[in-house]
Amino acid sequence: MIITVSREFGSGGREVGKRLADALGLNYIDREIVTTIANENNMNEDVVEETLAQGLVSRVPIHYGRSFYYYQNVPTMSSQLLIRQQTLLKEFAMKGDCVIVGRAADVVLEDYDPFRIFVYADLSSKIVRCRKLGPEEEALSDRELERKMKRIDSDRARYYSLYGSTPWGDKSNYDLCVNTSAFEIKEIVPQIADYIRRWYIVRK
Amino acid sequence: MIITVSREFGSGGREVGKRLADALGLNYIDREIVTTIANENNMNEDVVEETLAQGLVSRVPIHYGRSFYYYQNVPTMSSQLLIRQQTLLKEFAMKGDCVIVGRAADVVLEDYDPFRIFVYADLSSKIVRCRKLGPEEEALSDRELERKMKRIDSDRARYYSLYGSTPWGDKSNYDLCVNTSAFEIKEIVPQIADYIRRWYIVRK
Repeated sequence: MIITVSREFGSGGREVGKRLADALGLNYIDREIVTTIANENNMNEDVVEETLAQGLVSRVPIHYGRSFYYYQNVPTMSSQLLIRQQTLLKEFAMKGDCVIVGRAADVVLEDYDPFRIFVYADLSSKIVRCRKLGPEEEALSDRELERKMKRIDSDRARYYSLYGSTPWGDKSNYDLCVNTSAFEIKEIVPQIADYIRRWYIVRK
Repeated sequence: MIITVSREFGSGGREVGKRLADALGLNYIDREIVTTIANENNMNEDVVEETLAQGLVSRVPIHYGRSFYYYQNVPTMSSQLLIRQQTLLKEFAMKGDCVIVGRAADVVLEDYDPFRIFVYADLSSKIVRCRKLGPEEEALSDRELERKMKRIDSDRARYYSLYGSTPWGDKSNYDLCVNTSAFEIKEIVPQIADYIRRWYIVRK
């Protein structure tokens, strides 16, 4: 049982992944990949995380004066890290049942027939969820938060396009798409877990 | 509890709707709307069904010679019927809990806070399901079936655009999107029903 979770920023997808892993008794793979790559390369974990998230190009803010800025794509040296991440994903998948959030794992691991879930939500409920992420998000205005969400989701889409032939978030890539707008994640994860258990039993 | 089911042609969406109605003990609304409108207007039920499905424009095949043809959009006189259908949908929704398949009911009934589900599948499994629909579909080649599917889905998208501000099939319109590629519908409907029951309990 391999479950890949893709998600819009602020939709609670990471929480869905963690809770699904708990409910189904699976390993939750996230930081392990970053830690392994950082150790192998004597790099800082945050730099590895950031580099992996950016894919092959990085968006660098170019500032004009105090407040006006735009983002420009700059090529990164991350291809080695990305290739290593792919191998690691496959190693984890071979080791046994697990839940993997992000990293285009649904495409990278397609030979392992994962259950692919996409988690999304309305803008307003994503803003509410984002505010609870940390002090940084708490301090942002709605417009700033919205801009941040868009930037992160477009990074994810760009990253996904390195591997997938269909766009990130296109429902045809996934087995189930869950809109988390109306509820607390923990309230409905048992039902999603039941669905996945059943899917593994009845699928042809 | 009002459930609207939107679906790609061949994905088994109608079966999902019927079985959900059974599982949850709800009325299944489908033919009643056509029958009522046909009786009110002394029209043939099939003509009413066809007219409603086409929306405000109808696609008429224009033939050249024996086999070559293309479709052209021709305006229909269906606006009266469409308005009546809207009123009927609301009447059914007010009468009590029900499942409604198609008819852009998710948008028309948005004031009733329906649970909105979208049912879709891979092309290959839709072709397999389509073949079982009837003798007409059984006789078509894969390519002809694919063309028929595309035509019907694009009719649905066009119809939806009369009511919705976002495109038909865009996951943001729905609370749950279910990919039925890998299994028999009846095998997994109880899990979908559980999800919906839970959703009604925990939503804010």
